Amino acid sequence: SVLSTESESKPLYWKVDNPTLSPRHLQDLPGFTRSVYKRDYALITPESHVYGPLPDWIDTSGAYLISPEMGSQFVMYLAKLKENSRSGLPLHDVERFIFVLQGVITLTNAAGVSQLLKVDSYAYFPPNFEHSIESDASATIVVFERRYAPLPNHVPEPLVNSTDKQPLLETPGEIFELRKLLPTSLAYDFNIHIMDFQPGEYLNVKEVHYNQHGLLLLEGKGIYRLGDSTQFRRVMSFGWHHSSHNGMLP
Amino acid sequence: SVLSTESESKPLYWKVDNPTLSPRHLQDLPGFTRSVYKRDYALITPESHVYGPLPDWIDTSGAYLISPEMGSQFVMYLAKLKENSRSGLPLHDVERFIFVLQGVITLTNAAGVSQLLKVDSYAYFPPNFEHSIESDASATIVVFERRYAPLPNHVPEPLVNSTDKQPLLETPGEIFELRKLLPTSLAYDFNIHIMDFQPGEYLNVKEVHYNQHGLLLLEGKGIYRLGDSTQFRRVMSFGWHHSSHNGMLP
Amino acid sequence: SVLSTESESKPLYWKVDNPTLSPRHLQDLPGFTRSVYKRDYALITPESHVYGPLPDWIDTSGAYLISPEMGSQFVMYLAKLKENSRSGLPLHDVERFIFVLQGVITLTNAAGVSQLLKVDSYAYFPPNFEHSIESDASATIVVFERRYAPLPNHVPEPLVNSTDKQPLLETPGEIFELRKLLPTSLAYDFNIHIMDFQPGEYLNVKEVHYNQHGLLLLEGKGIYRLGDSTQFRRVMSFGWHHSSHNGMLP
Amino acid sequence: SVLSTESESKPLYWKVDNPTLSPRHLQDLPGFTRSVYKRDYALITPESHVYGPLPDWIDTSGAYLISPEMGSQFVMYLAKLKENSRSGLPLHDVERFIFVLQGVITLTNAAGVSQLLKVDSYAYFPPNFEHSIESDASATIVVFERRYAPLPNHVPEPLVNSTDKQPLLETPGEIFELRKLLPTSLAYDFNIHIMDFQPGEYLNVKEVHYNQHGLLLLEGKGIYRLGDSTQFRRVMSFGWHHSSHNGMLP
Amino acid sequence: SVLSTESESKPLYWKVDNPTLSPRHLQDLPGFTRSVYKRDYALITPESHVYGPLPDWIDTSGAYLISPEMGSQFVMYLAKLKENSRSGLPLHDVERFIFVLQGVITLTNAAGVSQLLKVDSYAYFPPNFEHSIESDASATIVVFERRYAPLPNHVPEPLVNSTDKQPLLETPGEIFELRKLLPTSLAYDFNIHIMDFQPGEYLNVKEVHYNQHGLLLLEGKGIYRLGDSTQFRRVMSFGWHHSSHNGMLP
Amino acid sequence: SVLSTESESKPLYWKVDNPTLSPRHLQDLPGFTRSVYKRDYALITPESHVYGPLPDWIDTSGAYLISPEMGSQFVMYLAKLKENSRSGLPLHDVERFIFVLQGVITLTNAAGVSQLLKVDSYAYFPPNFEHSIESDASATIVVFERRYAPLPNHVPEPLVNSTDKQPLLETPGEIFELRKLLPTSLAYDFNIHIMDFQPGEYLNVKEVHYNQHGLLLLEGKGIYRLGDSTQFRRVMSFGWHHSSHNGMLP
Amino acid sequence: SVLSTESESKPLYWKVDNPTLSPRHLQDLPGFTRSVYKRDYALITPESHVYGPLPDWIDTSGAYLISPEMGSQFVMYLAKLKENSRSGLPLHDVERFIFVLQGVITLTNAAGVSQLLKVDSYAYFPPNFEHSIESDASATIVVFERRYAPLPNHVPEPLVNSTDKQPLLETPGEIFELRKLLPTSLAYDFNIHIMDFQPGEYLNVKEVHYNQHGLLLLEGKGIYRLGDSTQFRRVMSFGWHHSSHNGMLP
Amino acid sequence: SVLSTESESKPLYWKVDNPTLSPRHLQDLPGFTRSVYKRDYALITPESHVYGPLPDWIDTSGAYLISPEMGSQFVMYLAKLKENSRSGLPLHDVERFIFVLQGVITLTNAAGVSQLLKVDSYAYFPPNFEHSIESDASATIVVFERRYAPLPNHVPEPLVNSTDKQPLLETPGEIFELRKLLPTSLAYDFNIHIMDFQPGEYLNVKEVHYNQHGLLLLEGKGIYRLGDSTQFRRVMSFGWHHSSHNGMLP
Ligand SMILES: [Mn+2]
Ligand SMILES: [Mn+2]
Ligand SMILES: [Mn+2]
Ligand SMILES: [Mn+2]
Ligand SMILES: [Mn+2]
Ligand SMILES: [Mn+2]
Ligand SMILES: [Mn+2]
Ligand SMILES: [Mn+2]
Repeated sequence: SVLSTESESKPLYWKVDNPTLSPRHLQDLPGFTRSVYKRDYALITPESHVYGPLPDWIDTSGAYLISPEMGSQFVMYLAKLKENSRSGLPLHDVERFIFVLQGVITLTNAAGVSQLLKVDSYAYFPPNFEHSIESDASATIVVFERRYAPLPNHVPEPLVNSTDKQPLLETPGEIFELRKLLPTSLAYDFNIHIMDFQPGEYLNVKEVHYNQHGLLLLEGKGIYRLGDSTQFRRVMSFGWHHSSHNGMLP
Repeated sequence: SVLSTESESKPLYWKVDNPTLSPRHLQDLPGFTRSVYKRDYALITPESHVYGPLPDWIDTSGAYLISPEMGSQFVMYLAKLKENSRSGLPLHDVERFIFVLQGVITLTNAAGVSQLLKVDSYAYFPPNFEHSIESDASATIVVFERRYAPLPNHVPEPLVNSTDKQPLLETPGEIFELRKLLPTSLAYDFNIHIMDFQPGEYLNVKEVHYNQHGLLLLEGKGIYRLGDSTQFRRVMSFGWHHSSHNGMLP
Repeated sequence: SVLSTESESKPLYWKVDNPTLSPRHLQDLPGFTRSVYKRDYALITPESHVYGPLPDWIDTSGAYLISPEMGSQFVMYLAKLKENSRSGLPLHDVERFIFVLQGVITLTNAAGVSQLLKVDSYAYFPPNFEHSIESDASATIVVFERRYAPLPNHVPEPLVNSTDKQPLLETPGEIFELRKLLPTSLAYDFNIHIMDFQPGEYLNVKEVHYNQHGLLLLEGKGIYRLGDSTQFRRVMSFGWHHSSHNGMLP
Repeated sequence: SVLSTESESKPLYWKVDNPTLSPRHLQDLPGFTRSVYKRDYALITPESHVYGPLPDWIDTSGAYLISPEMGSQFVMYLAKLKENSRSGLPLHDVERFIFVLQGVITLTNAAGVSQLLKVDSYAYFPPNFEHSIESDASATIVVFERRYAPLPNHVPEPLVNSTDKQPLLETPGEIFELRKLLPTSLAYDFNIHIMDFQPGEYLNVKEVHYNQHGLLLLEGKGIYRLGDSTQFRRVMSFGWHHSSHNGMLP
Repeated sequence: SVLSTESESKPLYWKVDNPTLSPRHLQDLPGFTRSVYKRDYALITPESHVYGPLPDWIDTSGAYLISPEMGSQFVMYLAKLKENSRSGLPLHDVERFIFVLQGVITLTNAAGVSQLLKVDSYAYFPPNFEHSIESDASATIVVFERRYAPLPNHVPEPLVNSTDKQPLLETPGEIFELRKLLPTSLAYDFNIHIMDFQPGEYLNVKEVHYNQHGLLLLEGKGIYRLGDSTQFRRVMSFGWHHSSHNGMLP
Repeated sequence: SVLSTESESKPLYWKVDNPTLSPRHLQDLPGFTRSVYKRDYALITPESHVYGPLPDWIDTSGAYLISPEMGSQFVMYLAKLKENSRSGLPLHDVERFIFVLQGVITLTNAAGVSQLLKVDSYAYFPPNFEHSIESDASATIVVFERRYAPLPNHVPEPLVNSTDKQPLLETPGEIFELRKLLPTSLAYDFNIHIMDFQPGEYLNVKEVHYNQHGLLLLEGKGIYRLGDSTQFRRVMSFGWHHSSHNGMLP
Repeated sequence: SVLSTESESKPLYWKVDNPTLSPRHLQDLPGFTRSVYKRDYALITPESHVYGPLPDWIDTSGAYLISPEMGSQFVMYLAKLKENSRSGLPLHDVERFIFVLQGVITLTNAAGVSQLLKVDSYAYFPPNFEHSIESDASATIVVFERRYAPLPNHVPEPLVNSTDKQPLLETPGEIFELRKLLPTSLAYDFNIHIMDFQPGEYLNVKEVHYNQHGLLLLEGKGIYRLGDSTQFRRVMSFGWHHSSHNGMLP
Repeated sequence: SVLSTESESKPLYWKVDNPTLSPRHLQDLPGFTRSVYKRDYALITPESHVYGPLPDWIDTSGAYLISPEMGSQFVMYLAKLKENSRSGLPLHDVERFIFVLQGVITLTNAAGVSQLLKVDSYAYFPPNFEHSIESDASATIVVFERRYAPLPNHVPEPLVNSTDKQPLLETPGEIFELRKLLPTSLAYDFNIHIMDFQPGEYLNVKEVHYNQHGLLLLEGKGIYRLGDSTQFRRVMSFGWHHSSHNGMLP
């Protein structure tokens, strides 16, 4: 296959944590980047990520990819945990979703119960649910946080799971493989989709909607239509958007 | 006439409910769409409609065409009712207008009185007016909802009527035919215009104003100026806008 | 002089009230207009004015040129008074400025005292100051309204005056003639400038600032830089803006 | 009808010879014009016509609209004959076509035979065919000239005729009315089409071809797609082009 | 597979001869086309093809897709042969290549020897080689013609063959399948490539070169980068170009 | 060195206070400016600065470069103090940072203690900290003000210091010299960076982030990428931005 | 007057020879220039002039502003004569026009007769007319050269004259002052216009024509429309063009 | 220094022959390239080079970077010689310049005299000068060829030399280091400049001229202004151009 050579011997999602931040031939071209920042979407390639210490986290640096300052209703950031690192808590009434991209993390709840999560595993914490994320060695996760929108008589539960345990869902009129990481019940006010495209596959619908997305390309490469322009992506992150989009992967 | 062949044997507004979502020769061109999404208007052609279950409705899927998330002060959506479907209610203090595009619906008020509405009929529900929309078979309606702006001593009444019963109004300086579906009294804080253009007719004024429109092309095809660009439309939906516009239909 | 022929025999500001809305050779070109509508400014030429009844006014139609819906902090509209017309009042806490463009109006205050105002005259009404504007015959005024921003110990007074009674002011580094229609004391939270340019004169400073302007070209024609582009204007109205601008008149 | 008022009492093609060169409200806006000049087409509205004496003609001024200097393989110009004017001859081996737009002209051949031609009449002169065009009073014609491309055994004949004597031709797949002013035999290396569109009619094919056109709008107004952009035209002239185009008239 | 449904029961290259020239939902949108015409390339979709009688051919109509008038050094046209049609000869010193897209044609050389060619077959005629192409029924071919550039001691031979008899060639650094329809010896001054892409495959090199191409998409659909923009193609023809290009098929 | 000639004999930061507002060869080109004003950044060169009296200050004129009206969360302005001038106080709960660009100022706190500050010195005033800035002669400062975002148990202290007393900091992956003018403890909710670039040096990271910057070029010249475009700067001021940026100095 | 200060004490046309090539504040901004170079015109400001030795001239350097390499049918260059310099001759059959911008030159013909020419004087040399231009001290001239297009029975004569001796000509429909430096007889195949605009004056016609111009701004400043864009000019040179243009001076 | 790490241990000009054609992270992004191709310049980065056999050369492949097909008056190509390769001769009356980028080549003239040339050496061959270039192992050269423009009494001589033997020349008004590889006598109708820029240095003049350049970046990286846009370059090749340009290296 076209894509087989590169990823053969690497761990899963290896590229996300080892982006081509500084390819020798481009790194010292002042100002050269594939990043774009528009009114209703942003494409933020690794050379534009700005890492800094995460407030309330210990020995962890983070890069905010999506933030309400840019118009979204949630935050999305990459967190790089170092040796003996430990998370802080979300703000009051804010729910959190994490997904492990590299390494192994230890999750501990308020009762002191711990779990190990490795790459492709994830966890959901309802608002005001006490927990900690710790790591003995280097680890990378992507974090989504959002002010929870409560509905009467609906209470979201904390969750720990992994992608490979989720069933394939129907996608009428479409051809890609879809998994959802959170239940579709009304208690949850957002969802996480893992979408798998075979070479040459793409979205048939060219969506224009008011929903907001944060996207992270886990593997492969391809072409993505955002607004009026066509972007070429490999290892990159997307900002929020509510404009027309359509993906072709890989 | 230029336009006669197509619509001859079809029911009224047939094209709105049978859009060319998947013309064979375009459907598998990844990313190809006539949709545009701009700061102050959007043109959302059928291949970009994203349908999902409507919360609180039974067996009904909807596609939001206009939403406050995009900058408007009202919502506009298409609702496709399936067999034995039933509507939910608008939010508190929100008024609702519906217009039947395909099929037959049954309207029932709080007193249990029911009415049948067929294509080209419409209904207006003041805020907090209890009602249900039901359908035994497939039906399609377009729905407008808006937080009602009350004025002292003005109370809007619920209404059921049809376009063909509305009189033609004066349009000084213009040539198209105009009908208004709601009374022009101050009790109503928006209105619905049905505008009929003969071939070669168009708006003389090139409007720039602060009002917001939602438009649905019921029949025919034409050219519409939105902002700086000229769009060609046939079966399509428009988002809100408050920019210059001018239509030529069909 | 280049400009003399046209205005010789016409009353003052005649062109504002007699715009070339429908020049025979352009009126039926569907969609052709010089109007532009941008993020931080708008140029609204007469063929794009949309007149409608002014709420609370009697026999008066108005065209809103600037409105908070577009991003400004004030409204600006043209009001055309017909025979036996009469104004409504501004909203609570809103100040109003009017300037007569055509005809004669009668101003009456709460004590029943009346004054006649003709072209080039103006009046300022502090917030919540009761008054009425009446006209026996056709008259046109431009109106500015704004929610008053009070300062402790500063109270604006009602004013009636005319442009020709205002002194020329210093414009260091600039060459045009400047008059201010309102006092510059802190009690007034906006001002109105009448700027006169001789042929070939222009602003030396290319202003970029956060203030907002509404502009109305009273006489002449010229070139105005708004944002990145150069606009050619004769009888036209401007929306608000806080971008770079620079005028050359006429 | 939309278009009826203007042309009611005017002679045929009156607008071409009485263009709105100097509408009062636009004439002194420095630099304002609808003209565009692109790589493969030009739209030259009357305010951009540059008239000068035509070499070898007596008392005639001309405005070149199309010229090989711009990339075309022919010339097209408007010629305004004054009192007692007289034409010059085309260059050697150059054929000429004329069409009367205003007034009456006298055509005289080498044998001294004369004919009167009025508006809507035309004449074709093969290369090196001696002739003169004379006028006692003001008259306007449009002239096409082209280096004749000879074929063995084909000889074009001189022609005098008028549009109203030409039959309507078939236009399969199209709806407009078509007349050809020259025979379609191989002896003639170009042709002149008179195309009539009713309101709302347009070309169905969006042509992209290598042929070159010169266009003159004789009556009406409309929208014309040239290359990527949509132009609004009323009285205007077109340059050459070999790009995509599509017309909607009027 | 994504692409299987459409082409299942159709003859080879059926889509080229049955393009979606007039899909009901787009055909009467005045001016709407995917065609683009640029300085160094053109994309000419079927709705922009202009057919006319081919000079010297009998009962055949042709649409020129590429012509020296547009900057190329060769011509490419589609020829539709009707019942009892017959070809004309190329100009003196011009070579010709034909490829059968639909139907069956009969090739006859100067000695009167005839051959039947069906879809996917092709023929090459050296300059000044006498031949005729005839058809009893409807047939479609694509024709390339070019002024032959002779080299001393190199003489091209006439050829008749079919694509399926040509071997797959090496494409170092690339992944698509390549066949060449003409010998690569110096006697031939151009070549014809049949390139097969599996879903997700694409050209790795983003070519910028001085060579000129004519392209015809025989089957499938995809994305093609031409110059700065990305085009979506299904059944379409390309003009010449010598700019950067890169294809992803289908 | 390339840059040595100009600044040799001038005082530090002389260019900021002596900008080329009116270079003879450009000053009377109407509308010519390097200023740009975009959705997420602005470049405001000196010819676009609009000075006016600063409210509550005595004999001081100011030019606002950044203001919340433009989308920022802080203000930045240049203040020109004249003879015997004196500052006003910030709004309630607003912190203030000043940096001396020209002349000498006297700082006095609530206890009446005074300090002299010369060029390159700066002061920080926590919210609601009483102080005055006075000058006997002409002086220029840049001022930043921001509504303070308090954290429990963190109290910022007033500060007076100068750039040359701040240590060089680590800039991993980057090569420029960095000094911070405020402590990095959580009590301070913004910071001021003094960045020194040698010829040919630049930022390696092409930042895309949600933070907002105000920038003032103190010395030198260079190229700065803001959003999609590359700007050439010498003496200029920047507005806020949260888009991609990358600097090359000088 | 706006323009009086600068030119008061300088010799005529002083600015052309003393352009602001290196204003201190812009000279070291890499890449910053007002020059533009388009398909059908160029604006070449002094900082883009490239001087080199003129072949066959002695001690003279020249900067070509217009050249057939760019599409024009003539050359235009500035020639700076140094001490004891001497001109070369034009190519065979090439005519030459010179105009003195600074200093004094000595003209000598084949018979050895000499004349002194100072600023504002000019000379015309028919093709193959032997002459020399010499200077003892620094002098600057602008030179036009063109392959002469002969007509039977028309012979151009050599000319020496000065602008102030030429009469003002009629400019119907226009308001500027026009002088022609060469006779308008057919013997001369180009002409030189000296156009004087008072402040606020401009060309009324927005010319689109096939003629080619070379322009040099001798005094003042203003706005010039070239093609689609508006350029601000002071001391600058223009390339050729045959597109729409319109000038407003100064 | 900023730039030192990369080139430390590599042979001279190593990067030109080892371009980053296929960086793992970009190579399979379909259509992604930094190449641009414009009317008057082209930037052709290594991923767009198309290599093919060079006619008349043995075992050598070449990539044409500049060719008259693109508008230039010369050709420029990279030639990669393999083991036992051997050059062909230029066309009749065509001169040739070669420069060694990698490896060692053997030059042999008609008399059988041979010379070894290594990296940074070059040779010039006058038109119709017989010679051969041979290589035992892999070698890379850049070749310029041009139809020689003869002058009476000027005969160019063949040359073999190396850059390090050429003197530094004066560059008045500029700061970079300049060497010329060919004599400046009139016998040579083009020249080759080796320009060395230190970090932060750049061209002061922003050249607009009719000359044509071919550029090859031998070492380093930087920013180059071509026409209206700013390009970032490292290892790349340029096409011809005669537009404004300005370089900043490295
Ligand atoms: Mn979506
Ligand atoms: Mn409207
Ligand atoms: Mn202003
Ligand atoms: Mn056509
Ligand atoms: Mn290619
Ligand atoms: Mn930053
Ligand atoms: Mn002109
Ligand atoms: Mn150069």
